[in-house]
Amino acid sequence: MNKEYVIGIDLGGTKIYAAVVDPNGNIIATARKKTKPDKGFEKTVERIAKTARKAVENAGLEMTDIKAAGIGSPGPLDLKAGKIIETPNLKWKDAPLRDELQKYLEVPVAMDNDGNVGILGEWAYGAGKGANDLVGLFIGTGVGGGVIVNGQLLHGYNENAGELGHMILDPNGPKCGCGNHGCLEAFASRLAIEREIQIIHLNGTPTTLISYLQDGERLRSKLLAKAFEDGDKPVKLALEKSASYIGYAVASLLNIFNPQVVVLGGGVVEALGESYVRIVRKVAENNVFAISKRNVKIVAATLEDDSAVLGAARLGWQLVE
Amino acid sequence: MNKEYVIGIDLGGTKIYAAVVDPNGNIIATARKKTKPDKGFEKTVERIAKTARKAVENAGLEMTDIKAAGIGSPGPLDLKAGKIIETPNLKWKDAPLRDELQKYLEVPVAMDNDGNVGILGEWAYGAGKGANDLVGLFIGTGVGGGVIVNGQLLHGYNENAGELGHMILDPNGPKCGCGNHGCLEAFASRLAIEREIQIIHLNGTPTTLISYLQDGERLRSKLLAKAFEDGDKPVKLALEKSASYIGYAVASLLNIFNPQVVVLGGGVVEALGESYVRIVRKVAENNVFAISKRNVKIVAATLEDDSAVLGAARLGWQLVE
Repeated sequence: MNKEYVIGIDLGGTKIYAAVVDPNGNIIATARKKTKPDKGFEKTVERIAKTARKAVENAGLEMTDIKAAGIGSPGPLDLKAGKIIETPNLKWKDAPLRDELQKYLEVPVAMDNDGNVGILGEWAYGAGKGANDLVGLFIGTGVGGGVIVNGQLLHGYNENAGELGHMILDPNGPKCGCGNHGCLEAFASRLAIEREIQIIHLNGTPTTLISYLQDGERLRSKLLAKAFEDGDKPVKLALEKSASYIGYAVASLLNIFNPQVVVLGGGVVEALGESYVRIVRKVAENNVFAISKRNVKIVAATLEDDSAVLGAARLGWQLVE
Repeated sequence: MNKEYVIGIDLGGTKIYAAVVDPNGNIIATARKKTKPDKGFEKTVERIAKTARKAVENAGLEMTDIKAAGIGSPGPLDLKAGKIIETPNLKWKDAPLRDELQKYLEVPVAMDNDGNVGILGEWAYGAGKGANDLVGLFIGTGVGGGVIVNGQLLHGYNENAGELGHMILDPNGPKCGCGNHGCLEAFASRLAIEREIQIIHLNGTPTTLISYLQDGERLRSKLLAKAFEDGDKPVKLALEKSASYIGYAVASLLNIFNPQVVVLGGGVVEALGESYVRIVRKVAENNVFAISKRNVKIVAATLEDDSAVLGAARLGWQLVE
């Protein structure tokens, strides 16, 4: 008897991650490549397909064992057309990701935005398992989000709901990648944390990470976590600011959705863990109606790097179930 | 053949409004009384029941013609227990509104919060008719809200979703009635508008409404609208600030829910009309992803004072349908 599998793909600004997943949500094998979005949309789709086929090969399987694929992409997306409308991180516009990838993989492909697939993964197999109503925030290069209402991903009229990173937390706040001011992402993303560390350093409190910043290198989340543990003051202040703003946003989201579980994921949360989540929880609980937080859990995601591929795989299963 | 009717009741901080409603959403007759919440919870329930019975009398009907009642109340509420948990405006705690009112009226009573019933009314019979996904904001003494997702009121885990007036728009902003800082309500409610007019006056730009403010009188929305039309500078600035913050909140809500329609209601919007809605629309559309606003309508409520009683009546019908 042939077992059946799907491929879940997580398309990020810096890397492509693909996993072969069985019907119970177990990952059989994985593969990764750099995204290299500057090489253009077509080349990137080719790289995505190669990564997916590599994961299948690593699983000791053939493409004939694969029933479908799902992909999580930065948005906003046009889900009906299967297109990326625009992405600040990948710089493409109106890119027909779903159909192009389908040509390369020759199986049905489902897509949704990165925040949504991550949250779908955590809801189906991770920290949100069993919850009916759930809100998720992923803090990485940007801030992504996703919402489950009554056991269903919230999509909305143009299928673009859940852009929680662009809630406005201060109309006079710093400029965001999206062009507006004071979005959650502009306060809390890893890029915002880097900027904040630089500002605190320039204001006279030196950071041990200055050489990275001066060389224009990315401060990887693990590096941030290490400096935080070592007591680097600007890093500590910048991470506390990020977590506080996530906390204010969670307070708003508790009052708006009154979910059962709030899941926090992404590189920053994975690297910092409970030191970060604790601040979010405290700020959120101090700024919300008693009933909106009653028995509500604010927790770290548990699937780490796998939440998006597992959620994307779940999307794939929905195509063939 | 006996026709059947329900009573819809709108419980506000200052007035009780009841309407007898037929199955098609037509209002047959109405009645109003002042709330007088300082006389205590029991006395107020008695007044609510009297107002409801007066509406029935005004309709030329008997209580035997009434199948059910619905009531919209300030929240947060415990819907399962039918209780008001706490209300900044009415000052009661843990008040069993639904069951007490049921005793007085001797018909089944349904309840939900004022924002939710208002939005249910506009969705069923008003500006949001036919939309699948809808967000509503009511700007009055406070700021209430409600959300329809896939044709259903959003309730959440503790049935307290939709507290849109307490989204945080600036963690360092003015103190809100709820105790937190920088909630939408603290920027945009009629009380916030009054405070802003006073501040602008004290800073040296005189307002024609100063005598009202000095006497500690409420600035009724119609008075605000008149002063706005007459070109009173502080009133104009304060109303523009209120509308701008509603606009920022609507931008966030478009990115969060991506609804088809945003309905703006409440005393301030009713009195100011398009002069207010235009500012909200402009600010919202300038601060949101293109896709989140595509073909989305941001419009004034059309049922005016009747949105809550009609939504409450709709709740009542749901009990007996």
